[in-house]
Amino acid sequence: MATTTKDRILDTSAELFRRQGYMGTGLKQLVAEAGAPFGSIYHFFPGGKEELGAETIRRSGELYLQLFVAIAAEAPDAPSAVSDFFAGAAETLVETDYSDACPIATVALEVASTNDTLRQATADVFESWIDASTAYYTAAGLSDEKARALSLSILSLLEGAFIFSRAMRSTEPMRVTGAAASAMVREALAA
Amino acid sequence: MATTTKDRILDTSAELFRRQGYMGTGLKQLVAEAGAPFGSIYHFFPGGKEELGAETIRRSGELYLQLFVAIAAEAPDAPSAVSDFFAGAAETLVETDYSDACPIATVALEVASTNDTLRQATADVFESWIDASTAYYTAAGLSDEKARALSLSILSLLEGAFIFSRAMRSTEPMRVTGAAASAMVREALAA
Repeated sequence: MATTTKDRILDTSAELFRRQGYMGTGLKQLVAEAGAPFGSIYHFFPGGKEELGAETIRRSGELYLQLFVAIAAEAPDAPSAVSDFFAGAAETLVETDYSDACPIATVALEVASTNDTLRQATADVFESWIDASTAYYTAAGLSDEKARALSLSILSLLEGAFIFSRAMRSTEPMRVTGAAASAMVREALAA
Repeated sequence: MATTTKDRILDTSAELFRRQGYMGTGLKQLVAEAGAPFGSIYHFFPGGKEELGAETIRRSGELYLQLFVAIAAEAPDAPSAVSDFFAGAAETLVETDYSDACPIATVALEVASTNDTLRQATADVFESWIDASTAYYTAAGLSDEKARALSLSILSLLEGAFIFSRAMRSTEPMRVTGAAASAMVREALAA
C-alpha cells in the first residue's frame, strides 16, 4: 500500500512536469491529483519537492529508456527503430493534446542554472540514454565515436522536435525530424 | 527615457527566462535586476506578466533571427553559416557558464499546455524562424518542401543540443550536432 501511494505520487509528478514543468507544479496540486495525503510527500521524500523532483526525473528517464529498448526489439533494423520511436512520439502528442512529451527536457531547461541537484539528475538520465544508444549503434557496426555522435544528433532531433511540435500544436516537426533521423542512421550504417 | 526603462525590463526578462524560465521568474526579482520601479511593469505592460512574457518572446525571437542573418551574411556558404551559428552558440554557453541559451525554448515547454497566449507567441516566433530559414535554403536551390524539412531538422538539432549542453554542462552536444547539421545542409544542396 505504501509502495502504491509512492508510485502514484511519482506517476502524477511525471505527468505534471511534462505538462507544466517543475516550477509550475505545486505540492498541493500534486497530492490532490495523486489522491494522496499531503504528509505522504515528506514521508516518502524527506527532502521535499527537490528529492521528489530528482526521483521523478530518474524514474521517467528509466521508463523512456525501456520504451526505446522495447520499440527497438520489435523493429527489423536500426533506421526503422528510430522511425518507429518518432512516430510513436507523434501519436502520443496527438492523443494527449500535445501535452505528453519528454518529462525531462522542460525540467532540464528550468533548473540547469538554478538547482544543481536536479540538473545533475537530468544530466545522469541524458548520459544513460546516450550510453544505451551508443551501445545500440556500436552493436550495429559503428565505431564508439561515430555511434556517440549519431546518438547525440538523434536525441537532439527528438528533443528539439518536442519543443516545436508542442508549441506549434502540429506533428509536422516530429514527422519531418523522424524521417531525417532515420535517414541519418541509414547513412551512418551504410558508410 | 521611458523607452530605456522598457528596454531594460525586456532585456532583463529575456535573460531571466533563459536562465530560470517563465514560471521561476517573479516580477519583484525582475524589477530589482532591471533597476526599474515596480509600477513600471504595469505602465508598460498593462496585461502584467503575461503581456511582458509575450513581448519578451517576440523580441528575443526577432533578435535571434537577426543574429542568424548576420552570421549567414558573413559565411561563404550555407553549410558554413550553420557551422558558425552552432559554434557561436557553444561559445556563448561557455562564456555564460551554460546559462545563455535559447530564450524561447524553456518558456515554450513550460507554457505549451497551460497558457495559450504565450504558447501562440512561441509558435509565431518558431514559424518566423522556419520561414526565414526556408527562404534561405530555397535561395540556395532547394524546393520549398525540402527547404522547410531541412529547416525543421536544423532548428530541432539546435534546440535539442541546447538542452543536452546545458544539462551536461558540456559543449560536446552543440559541437557534434553542429557538425551533423552542417553535413545535412551540404548533402541536401548537393542532391
